[in-house]
Amino acid sequence: MKSNSFAMGDTGIQRKLGTICIFGTGDFGRSLGLRLLQAGYGVVFGSRNPKDSSLLPKGTQVLSHAEAAQTSQVIFVAVHRENYDFLGQMAEGLAGKVLVDVSNNLKRNQYPESNAEYLSTLVPAASVVKAFNTVSAWALQSGGLDANRQVFVCGDQCEAKQMVVDIAHSLGLTALDKGSLRAAGEIEDYPLLLFPLWRLPMAIATGLTAAFFVYVLIQDVVYNAVVNGKDNSFRIMISLANKVFPTVSLIMLALCYLPGVIAAFLQLYNGTKYRRFPDWLDRWMLCRKQLGLVALALAFLHVLYTLLIPIRYYVRLRLNDWTISQVKQNKTETLDTTMAWRTDSYYSIGVLGFAFFVLLGITSLPSVSNAMNWREFRFVQSKLGHLTLLLCTAHTFLFGWDKFLRPYKWYIPPGYMLSLILPCIVLVLKLVLITPCVDRTVTRIRQGWERKPAGRVGVNGTTSSQPLML
Amino acid sequence: MKSNSFAMGDTGIQRKLGTICIFGTGDFGRSLGLRLLQAGYGVVFGSRNPKDSSLLPKGTQVLSHAEAAQTSQVIFVAVHRENYDFLGQMAEGLAGKVLVDVSNNLKRNQYPESNAEYLSTLVPAASVVKAFNTVSAWALQSGGLDANRQVFVCGDQCEAKQMVVDIAHSLGLTALDKGSLRAAGEIEDYPLLLFPLWRLPMAIATGLTAAFFVYVLIQDVVYNAVVNGKDNSFRIMISLANKVFPTVSLIMLALCYLPGVIAAFLQLYNGTKYRRFPDWLDRWMLCRKQLGLVALALAFLHVLYTLLIPIRYYVRLRLNDWTISQVKQNKTETLDTTMAWRTDSYYSIGVLGFAFFVLLGITSLPSVSNAMNWREFRFVQSKLGHLTLLLCTAHTFLFGWDKFLRPYKWYIPPGYMLSLILPCIVLVLKLVLITPCVDRTVTRIRQGWERKPAGRVGVNGTTSSQPLML
Amino acid sequence: MKSNSFAMGDTGIQRKLGTICIFGTGDFGRSLGLRLLQAGYGVVFGSRNPKDSSLLPKGTQVLSHAEAAQTSQVIFVAVHRENYDFLGQMAEGLAGKVLVDVSNNLKRNQYPESNAEYLSTLVPAASVVKAFNTVSAWALQSGGLDANRQVFVCGDQCEAKQMVVDIAHSLGLTALDKGSLRAAGEIEDYPLLLFPLWRLPMAIATGLTAAFFVYVLIQDVVYNAVVNGKDNSFRIMISLANKVFPTVSLIMLALCYLPGVIAAFLQLYNGTKYRRFPDWLDRWMLCRKQLGLVALALAFLHVLYTLLIPIRYYVRLRLNDWTISQVKQNKTETLDTTMAWRTDSYYSIGVLGFAFFVLLGITSLPSVSNAMNWREFRFVQSKLGHLTLLLCTAHTFLFGWDKFLRPYKWYIPPGYMLSLILPCIVLVLKLVLITPCVDRTVTRIRQGWERKPAGRVGVNGTTSSQPLML
Repeated sequence: MKSNSFAMGDTGIQRKLGTICIFGTGDFGRSLGLRLLQAGYGVVFGSRNPKDSSLLPKGTQVLSHAEAAQTSQVIFVAVHRENYDFLGQMAEGLAGKVLVDVSNNLKRNQYPESNAEYLSTLVPAASVVKAFNTVSAWALQSGGLDANRQVFVCGDQCEAKQMVVDIAHSLGLTALDKGSLRAAGEIEDYPLLLFPLWRLPMAIATGLTAAFFVYVLIQDVVYNAVVNGKDNSFRIMISLANKVFPTVSLIMLALCYLPGVIAAFLQLYNGTKYRRFPDWLDRWMLCRKQLGLVALALAFLHVLYTLLIPIRYYVRLRLNDWTISQVKQNKTETLDTTMAWRTDSYYSIGVLGFAFFVLLGITSLPSVSNAMNWREFRFVQSKLGHLTLLLCTAHTFLFGWDKFLRPYKWYIPPGYMLSLILPCIVLVLKLVLITPCVDRTVTRIRQGWERKPAGRVGVNGTTSSQPLML
Repeated sequence: MKSNSFAMGDTGIQRKLGTICIFGTGDFGRSLGLRLLQAGYGVVFGSRNPKDSSLLPKGTQVLSHAEAAQTSQVIFVAVHRENYDFLGQMAEGLAGKVLVDVSNNLKRNQYPESNAEYLSTLVPAASVVKAFNTVSAWALQSGGLDANRQVFVCGDQCEAKQMVVDIAHSLGLTALDKGSLRAAGEIEDYPLLLFPLWRLPMAIATGLTAAFFVYVLIQDVVYNAVVNGKDNSFRIMISLANKVFPTVSLIMLALCYLPGVIAAFLQLYNGTKYRRFPDWLDRWMLCRKQLGLVALALAFLHVLYTLLIPIRYYVRLRLNDWTISQVKQNKTETLDTTMAWRTDSYYSIGVLGFAFFVLLGITSLPSVSNAMNWREFRFVQSKLGHLTLLLCTAHTFLFGWDKFLRPYKWYIPPGYMLSLILPCIVLVLKLVLITPCVDRTVTRIRQGWERKPAGRVGVNGTTSSQPLML
Repeated sequence: MKSNSFAMGDTGIQRKLGTICIFGTGDFGRSLGLRLLQAGYGVVFGSRNPKDSSLLPKGTQVLSHAEAAQTSQVIFVAVHRENYDFLGQMAEGLAGKVLVDVSNNLKRNQYPESNAEYLSTLVPAASVVKAFNTVSAWALQSGGLDANRQVFVCGDQCEAKQMVVDIAHSLGLTALDKGSLRAAGEIEDYPLLLFPLWRLPMAIATGLTAAFFVYVLIQDVVYNAVVNGKDNSFRIMISLANKVFPTVSLIMLALCYLPGVIAAFLQLYNGTKYRRFPDWLDRWMLCRKQLGLVALALAFLHVLYTLLIPIRYYVRLRLNDWTISQVKQNKTETLDTTMAWRTDSYYSIGVLGFAFFVLLGITSLPSVSNAMNWREFRFVQSKLGHLTLLLCTAHTFLFGWDKFLRPYKWYIPPGYMLSLILPCIVLVLKLVLITPCVDRTVTRIRQGWERKPAGRVGVNGTTSSQPLML
């Protein structure tokens, strides 16, 4: 379907679909005009200097704003908000028109109200529709990448919105109705975002990775250089990476489930769900999905690095040395069944944990999670999630086995032992929460029961002593 | 965009968007009221006891039902269906209002008609819209997880629906129009489902896994303990798992394609497509996708377990022993080219089979399969699907090689040989179906041709001797 | 929800939802009639021979076209376009009706205008809606696979469309509004497509794979047979495959980013973005996503083949031989730190490159890329994409290490060296583009600046000397 949309200009069929007016002859206005022209619309530009039309696409007209407005029912306002004043002055001529606000701001919350709402107050007799601001001029022309095909539309008049949606469809774009003009602020902020929910998880992952890298570097490379006088710095590339990644991954998986149990205990303590969580907890809970996905990425790296072990030069050499030394000493190692059970269990539980982890990742894909109802989603993310955490924690414990109580090099414990602290806390707290009596109380609280009703609860955190859970 | 929706309460901008009335002061009513208040709406509760408003959010009003109804065009009915009677009694006061039915039932098909349709017969002069029942009270307040952001909306009046959609958007939810009020029953059943299509496949997978586990346990561990008096029970964790998973995976992949060929042969036998399939075949065909995905998960485990082999303690020990014994006997093994061809082919075909299997899994993601047309989907799921089955079957045959005719331990064949039966049946039947003459007949039948037209075909399975294919 | 939709016929509740008329008693008409009947509609067929109703579902009526038309507001036109003439003749009787055009063509662009638009000119007084053409008769009856549940709807009258959308929902299908009737041509072409954007990438992948396979076959197997007289043809299955796949994968990854840099240099050369790219470049840019995904699939195979290495019979044998020979010569190999650094870096960078590659693949899933804004999508696909290319190129360079300058067998360089040419070109060109001064010029050009404004730019490639970038 895509190729078709863009091949439209090649067919030679140029159907006239009515005329559309564009205020503003900047880059976006020109690109939009060209695209409309190719889709078969007539295009009239409104400009302060109708004489200067040097850059405009051939086949379009340029008139003064007032003249241009009379040619079309739909007017795209492709000028900056700072220059909206002239629209207020010609408000009469715009009465009954559909004004499409395509503007963007340079930063979030730049103005008290959205550009489209501001436009609506300037020209109250027109139907203002916010749309097309998420599409770049470059995308309108090249249509190359996928992300730009979605047009968010909002507005208070249904017919006006429908006209804009039809135009978007004509240009090969998908339109998504976001409701009334009040949504304009959100739509205007949208193109300015750069993974806002991923920042905290990425910062945590980067910080932890750096910290643990230094930690294991000291334990492995520096210790060896200082104590044994040997250089095994080559271990940085795989051995150390394969210590740091699983450590950070397990901690981040625990961080993903910790806010949930903290929230439950807070509700138990408060005896009500009608009290707002602290801000830090709210923010934390909002990025749980991202925390989990970063942890999954690190676990994926851990799996690859682990599976690479036997083809490493260093490992082959050591195994070879071991065999040769056994031949020379003329001894054969006998199978230690405990060792066989332990190592195989360790690997097997790790594989199962990783498989459940991947399943969690797949269910967090938007199209998969949208196909689930609330009950199913809770089942997967809560039940399977904690099972995954349990398996990964058990995997790490089996890895450590009896090394927990042995003396540590330089008295600092290995990184994986530190990584077990948070998961154990989460699992113990969760265990408390699922004991029948506690579980019953939490369920009642979440169904609206309160230990001691505290009068009407305030909606506004500043005026009420008990801020609400948002 | 999400963070934005939930940060709305923090901006301090509390715009009045008109008043909305909520009947019922239970948990859902209160949560909804709070959320509406935060989004900038005025909220009026209708209650039987307007005096008792202890738990209601500050800033809301509580009136009698009749008084509350007069304050708003849109009324959320947040009471149980059992208590709808009072709505019928005040039907006049509700004429022209938009009644939003948010109710859920405790089990499916509890009542002959849906709650919303029942409400519509009680208050015929109101516009009933079914919505918000898939959103939990907890989700309305915390907004944490993704699954709850989708609101299904249905109703017979377009404008009424639009108002409800706009409210959903204001609360940061996505609305999905499901058509007229007749869809209400389906929407009411939705939150009660827990992976209905996954139950049969999961039951089959669990049953087969358990059965084959016991089977290989007897063959490997029990046999060894009884006959050789050795304990190799540690093999359970990886070696046995890696025998059970691929076996069950291959059987389930065959089960995924078997109903399709059975259906084709049934149509050939009946000489028409206008005859209903037996119920068991219908149910089977509906869960083919789930069968395939469970098989893929097991194949994924098989791959991980296989790649782990060389880092296992037991394997390293045995390889070491082998080398040492060769040194001692002073002999070197020469390369057996047939063996090299066979093992490499076995691995290589397995890798290709797994890669196609993953491709099938990716194309079954909702967003990917929605982007394909019917022809493309058939190509992937049918052509590539049978190719995958062929490759995985060939992989298993190459694994067995010349062991098929050797004597078995205790006269029971290894599990993987049993797993080959179903795939071979499917492949042979498919081979018959794609021979030109059979293929032509099946195609004609599917285009509507009948071997012996049998008069008008009945729509109702009970009154007609020839039940229809549904 | 799915099972529910199809179980509808089993509930025994047959609600009458009004009558729907179907013109045409062919396979599609019959299947549709049956499904409508099961959903609770009354069905009346319009036929040229109302007497012959042998194949029609029991419970339906058959009348002449004119009589049938009077029974219903909505008429499905399930006849071939060639037979539309009678509709023009009875245009008066169809005035005000909703005509649903369900027709498909046998090939793309068969007629100058779409069937639905043609129907609209024949019966101008009716509201023509294009819908249901992407649903096959087989799918209507069996409802088995997912791809057929989506109904594209377009039409000029909003109410008429809404009626058709409601019918689609009643049948358990999802409806997607594609705008006005002008979209009909695109909707009619849709079922005829078979992965149009995948053809070029698949052809390139197949061609390159075949060429490189022959290349390494000569180098490895033929050379060995001719020069050493040894048969190592078994290496074909894994060793050669694992040389060909990464080679082709790297080339295709470079091919995915090459058109972007070529386009930027073309714009720099032209000094404007208002000049159309050559057709080959347009086509190339449109299938970049597909090029990348094929490259990812090959990289996935490369990873699996590599991880399989240590469990291969041939590899185990050779390692064993090596150990035995060392024992016999009574020498031990000492650790070569450079070698350890090099090989570990080589693996580690490969793992990181693959992980980023998988990330790119995940973000190209429709539901994931739709959830990103333009800025985020550009960040992922451009920044992370070039980083992935850089890592994979470095991985290949480290693999080669000092072998680049050694003499080659038969004077032909190994395949991986050839695969480095394109990636290096892309990376060098990209490096030029991101130098501050060049970057500034490109950014200005993309914002609409022109080095020498060349008058009004023509929209039509044939009449203007400067064709536009589409």
